[in-house]
Order: sequence, then structure tokens, then C-alpha cells
Amino acid sequence: MNDKIILETAKGFRDFSPEEKILRDKVIFKIKNIFENYGFSPLETPTVEKLEILEAKFGAGEDSDAVSEIYRFKDQGDRDLGLRYEFTFALARYIGMNPQTRLPFKRYQIGPVFRDGPIKAGRYREFYQCDVDIVGVNSQEADAEIISLIDYVFKDLNLEVNIEINDRRLLEEILDFLKIQKEKQTSVIITIDKLKKTGKEGVKNELLSKGLDENTCNSLLNILLSSKQNQEALEDLSKTIGETDGIVSLRNLFSFLEYYNVNYTFLPSLARGLGYYTGPIFEVFLKDEKIMSSSIAGGGRWDKMIGKYLQDENRNYPAVGVAFGLEPIMEIIKKREGMAKKTTADLFIIPIGDKNIKEAIRITQEIRKQKVNTSIDLLKRNIGKNIDYADKLGITYVGFLGENEILENKIKIKNIKTGEESLIDVKDVFSFLK
Amino acid sequence: MNDKIILETAKGFRDFSPEEKILRDKVIFKIKNIFENYGFSPLETPTVEKLEILEAKFGAGEDSDAVSEIYRFKDQGDRDLGLRYEFTFALARYIGMNPQTRLPFKRYQIGPVFRDGPIKAGRYREFYQCDVDIVGVNSQEADAEIISLIDYVFKDLNLEVNIEINDRRLLEEILDFLKIQKEKQTSVIITIDKLKKTGKEGVKNELLSKGLDENTCNSLLNILLSSKQNQEALEDLSKTIGETDGIVSLRNLFSFLEYYNVNYTFLPSLARGLGYYTGPIFEVFLKDEKIMSSSIAGGGRWDKMIGKYLQDENRNYPAVGVAFGLEPIMEIIKKREGMAKKTTADLFIIPIGDKNIKEAIRITQEIRKQKVNTSIDLLKRNIGKNIDYADKLGITYVGFLGENEILENKIKIKNIKTGEESLIDVKDVFSFLK
Repeated sequence: MNDKIILETAKGFRDFSPEEKILRDKVIFKIKNIFENYGFSPLETPTVEKLEILEAKFGAGEDSDAVSEIYRFKDQGDRDLGLRYEFTFALARYIGMNPQTRLPFKRYQIGPVFRDGPIKAGRYREFYQCDVDIVGVNSQEADAEIISLIDYVFKDLNLEVNIEINDRRLLEEILDFLKIQKEKQTSVIITIDKLKKTGKEGVKNELLSKGLDENTCNSLLNILLSSKQNQEALEDLSKTIGETDGIVSLRNLFSFLEYYNVNYTFLPSLARGLGYYTGPIFEVFLKDEKIMSSSIAGGGRWDKMIGKYLQDENRNYPAVGVAFGLEPIMEIIKKREGMAKKTTADLFIIPIGDKNIKEAIRITQEIRKQKVNTSIDLLKRNIGKNIDYADKLGITYVGFLGENEILENKIKIKNIKTGEESLIDVKDVFSFLK
Repeated sequence: MNDKIILETAKGFRDFSPEEKILRDKVIFKIKNIFENYGFSPLETPTVEKLEILEAKFGAGEDSDAVSEIYRFKDQGDRDLGLRYEFTFALARYIGMNPQTRLPFKRYQIGPVFRDGPIKAGRYREFYQCDVDIVGVNSQEADAEIISLIDYVFKDLNLEVNIEINDRRLLEEILDFLKIQKEKQTSVIITIDKLKKTGKEGVKNELLSKGLDENTCNSLLNILLSSKQNQEALEDLSKTIGETDGIVSLRNLFSFLEYYNVNYTFLPSLARGLGYYTGPIFEVFLKDEKIMSSSIAGGGRWDKMIGKYLQDENRNYPAVGVAFGLEPIMEIIKKREGMAKKTTADLFIIPIGDKNIKEAIRITQEIRKQKVNTSIDLLKRNIGKNIDYADKLGITYVGFLGENEILENKIKIKNIKTGEESLIDVKDVFSFLK
């Protein structure tokens, strides 16, 4: 036997212990319920895809980092495969393979994606994304439904967030208005996107170094850093650059968001990395950025990608969606709540005396049927050790079953945090613990 | 643009459409709830593991097929990796890396595993397993808890099953008693395991061809095909071969199963493939084998593997568990129930007239807050098209919101299957639909 094997997870991968997974499942369950509350339906695409499909850069644009980070391999039939690195391409593939799909197609997908990239604090090579998209609706009603969903999810998770909104086209329209050359625009947009992090001076210096003149820089920064907010800022901008596509679509979107009663921040410098957005874009940050400064959700409208995947640009599949980053959300919630229980059990039953085990098992099954998550001692340990075990797992209630309790069909339940003991009818355990 | 890409899933992989995934999620949710009802806690290990850990055959024994079917690859740091092909090894690794884990450790894991093997009907290269194990208990109380859990799961899924039970050691003890040479025993066990499928004559011929004499064959088959059942058959066997370890542990197990009130079938010819079992083994089949003839769950006691993984056989980690095959279970349930709805939405709202959209959105949000899964028309289609869309997705109820309804804070709900219409207070939609 090879005795040199080191027991460890692969680099960038990790286990979720029961205490962590219990909390994760709780959060995933909440998110899933809200997706379904909005009428989104689950789709599950495989973990492994044909490499060709994964690498098709139809829409990825500048985001080719992700493609270079695909885990690539072959099956025994020498087929080129890879692990999925996101869900959007798979949605496009699914629609392409299922042209009978009724539109609008409102789907969500929650699960792990894989990137063979650099590892930093909080960054892993397997991480969960929660994607929601509406395919087949061209209007801002769909964008607003997605943004309202974002708002709803974070309210349910009790997280105060800023939803920043812009339109992909607006930045180009502003740069066109300022007569900044087309070939410089991508580079300028990359700089502008740093405005929140780097600040005005930093961005100005970078723009100057990229060859913009002082006047253009100042005008650009004036436009981006309007003292007005949301609809007012948008109307000001409209007076400056005119009724562009970006302006019109944002005005529409903002009025729908009012119907939904959603708070948001219009941020004309927001660019987002992904090249495949074609209209409104949004990015979500925790209000308290001291706790988490990176974005915790982001999305936008991506009207062209599915058509490109279908290799038929005449077929029109407008789409809008958002991806929630489960990992940063979990980081925040773990910091806030800690992790309490190491087990799903709410009650731990200790039979007193060997001859009562048969009846203790019968009663345990009766309590389980009441939907009380219950464990029973399997090691015949003494009471002290059993209580210690329950305590270490974070179980509050232990139940004793001795001869007397069994005769009366009762159970003696002890709250091991307070020491309080109660003799309860077996049939009433659920309501007692509730 | 490369226009030759064929949109398809990789060989052996598949999409789960919303209608299929909705049913899958329902089944997984039930199974998960019962695992937790028994006090098992979730553990999530990564999809990708170090190849060295995956290939360690410490316990795999004859089951090296699975190891040869590992998807292997490297990361960009040239590390050898693979996709998990089961969960048991990862549980062993986890215990090894977390020696502070409190015992008994009752954990479950539900998720996909991957095998680069032959594809047949119903056999895929990514498939879900649902594993439950108890680590740290040496006695048949734990085996019985696992078997009772199996019984509970299938009762909850409304599937009638046969739970076949044997003890890994018993077969060897019978062969020893019949003085069959040690070096022939593995081969003989492989033949015996086919008894249910091949029948008595087939097995006898195969045993003869493997060099057993006529008398030994007859004695062996007489023992295996006792006319008695369960405890009686076991006591008969005990009179023949004596009080062996296998007999004692099965007697113990059967008495605990009586406490749990579980039906089972003692099947002394049951061998199961995996080499790592050390005591009781069990395998579950649908009673109606015409619907599904392959096993839908199986497990047993595996006391040595974790110690081997820890490379310290003095550390004793007895374990017992079961793996449920989600794929065959889903096949059965799909055949029985079909797949009804293509959406999670239970209500589809149709605003009548553009000017009512704002109020329709407000009411939609109010209904969603009541926990009614609700979609709203996003395409401003006419009523006929909207009803057709709802119908095609399997939604029974549509809700109309025109000026009159909105003024009264009501909604006109139509059951599109019966045609029945009702005018409902918005605040009562949840109870109406329930």
C-alpha cells in the first residue's frame, strides 16, 4: 500500500462541513423559493460540455479570461470536453436544441461552475452561481422584473444592497457625443468603470495618459458625476446628449422600477466586463462595503448571444438576466450569523436501560413521523457522554426514555441550555418543540 | 464565425428540462427531508478531487471498474485531477482531514457523480447518487437505522420495494463449511450472486464448470434456496454451519428490524459487487420488476475503508450506509406520474389594457408576497394568446386585471381547464388557490 498519500482537497477546492452546508442549504432554499415565486422554472444542464460549445466565443467578447480558465479533458473516446464555467452559454445551447420552447422562457439554474484561475481569499475554483433569465422579451418590463427579483431576494436575505444600473449603449453614446474616437472607446470605458474605486483624479490621470485632452476629460467626468440622481440625472443627460437609445430604454426601465417600488442607483460610469450585454446592465453591492466590497450579483440584457449560438442571427432571442454570486453572499451571512448547528437533528433521544431499546425505537419513529428531526443514541453511552455529544453538535433538546416514561407513553425532554425538564406526551413532542 | 458547431450535449450527458427538473427537485426534496428527519446532516465535498485520492484503491477491491472510468485531467499547474465517481472515498478523506469530527457522524450527500463508462438505456455519464452513512458505530443498531431509513424513503415515495439482506461474511462461512477452497471462493461468489437472475440450473452448471463437484453444488444450493424465510431460515442455517460471525450479526440485525417494523428478505446468495463491505449488505429492488429490474438502492457495512484511507489501520472507523440511485427512482416515478407542469408558476396574470400595467404589477407583487408562484404577461399579447401560453406550460389559473378589478382591489381568476371564473379579493388569492 502506498502510504505517502496526503489527504487533502485539490487546489482551489474545498469541503462544506455539515455546519456550513446546513447554512448554505438554507440560503439556497430561500433564493430558489423566490425564483419560483416569480414563476421562474429550474433547468439543469450538465456539468460537462463539449469543449467546442464551451469555447465558442460568440458572445464572450472581452471576457475571454473565463474561456482560458476552462478545465479541459478528453473522454476515453477521445472527445474534447470541459467543465462549465458559467450557465449562460448552456441556456443558449438549450434554446438552440429545443426550438419548440415556449417564450417567454423564464428559467433559473443554481449550481457549481468551474474556473482554473488564480486563487485569492474567498476565490475558489468551484463556486456556485444562481442564474435567472427571461428569454423572449424585448422590453424593459422584463428588465424591471429581473431587478425587482434582485431586490426581493436581498430583502428576504435581510441584506441591504445598492443596485447600480446603467445601459451598455449609454457609455458609447456619451463618448460619441464627446467625439472620442471609436477605436479608443473600449479602453476609455475600462478606465471609466474604475470611477467608483479609483476616484475622479485617478480616472482623469488614466484618461489623460490614454491620450484624451483635458477638456474632453473634464466634460466626460462632469457628465458621469452628475450631482443629480436617477431620473433627474437621466433627464439632464438627455438634454446634453439627446434622446439616444440608452436614454430611452433607461427612462422606460426607471418608470417600471417605480411600479415595482424598487430602490436603485443610476450610475452612468458602470460598464461591467462581459462583452455580451446589449442594453441595460446592473450590478449589486452590499451597502456596507466594509463587510464585502466585491459585487454580489450582476446582470443585464443580452439580446444577441442566443442568435449567435444558433448560428442564425435572423432568429431573435432577446434575453435579460442576473447571476447571484452565492459565495460572497455566504461570506456575508456567515459573518453575520455564524454557524450554529452541526446537525439537522433537533432532538436527541437517550434510551435508559438496555431492555427499553425496543420501545425507545418505536417512540423515536413516532416522533420522526411528527416531522421532528430526531437522532437516537446508537452507542449505549452513559447520560453524561450523550448530553455532551448532543451539546457539541448544537442540539438543544435531549429526550430520556426509561421504563416509567415508556409505560405512560411519555418522554422526558431536557433543554440542555437551560437545564429545564418537561414530561411530554409522545404525541405532543412536535408542538412542544415548536 | 465558425458555423459548423453542432449544438448538442456531450456524449453520455443530458439536460433536465424544467418539467423534468421540477419533478426531480420534488423527489430530491422528499429524500433530503427524510435524511434530515433521521438526524443525518449534509456534507458537500468537491466535484473535482486529486487523482491520487480518487485512485487509492484502498477499499475498492473488485470494483476497479469505477476507477478505470474516472474522468482524468490536469489543471494549469499540471496537477493531476479527476471527477468524483462516488461519494464514499470523499467521506473517508473528510474524516481523515477532520479527526475532531464527533462520532457517530451521520452524514448524507446528494449530487452528481461521473463515470466515463459504457452508455446504455437509462445509463448516463453524470448521474445523481444520494448517500447516507453512519460513521463510528460498530453495532447492528446502526445497520437497522439505515435499513429503516430505506424503508421510510420508499414508503414516502410510494414505491413498493423488496429490501434484500445478507452478510458479506456469511457467504464465505458457508463456502468454508462446504470445504470449498479459499482461492475458488471469489469466483464461486460471483456465480452465486446471479442466482436470482439466472436461476438454480444456470448457477449449478456454472459452478460445475468452475470445478465444484455435484454433491457440493447440491448442498450449496440447498442452503441458499431454503424454503424458510428470514429468521427461520437463519436459525436453520445456524444449525447447519454453526454460530458464525455472519449468523450472529444477522440475528441481531433482524431483531432490530423487528423493532423498526421493517419488512425485508433474507437472501443468503446476495453478494453485491463492491469489495469494501465487511458485514451486513443490502440491496433494494422495486417489487414490480417489470417496471424496473435493476436495483434502486444498495449498501452495507464497511468497517475498514476509512482506517485504510487514514493509512492507520489501528484507528477504527466502523461505518454503514446506503446509496440511493436517483436515476432509476426517477425513471419509475416518471413512468407512474408523467410530467405535468413546465413551470413553477401556479397563476398567470394578464393585465387588461396598457394603462393598468402599473396597478397590475403592484397586485402581482402583493400576490407573490402571499407565496403564490406567479408570472405576469410581459409581452402585451392578447388574451387568447396568453391563455394558450399558460395552458401549454400547464398553468391552471389565469388572473385578469382590468380597470374594474383594480378599482375594487380584486382579480378575476379563471380556471382554464374548467372555464370557471371567480372574482376574488386580492388578499384572498392564496387561500382561493389552495
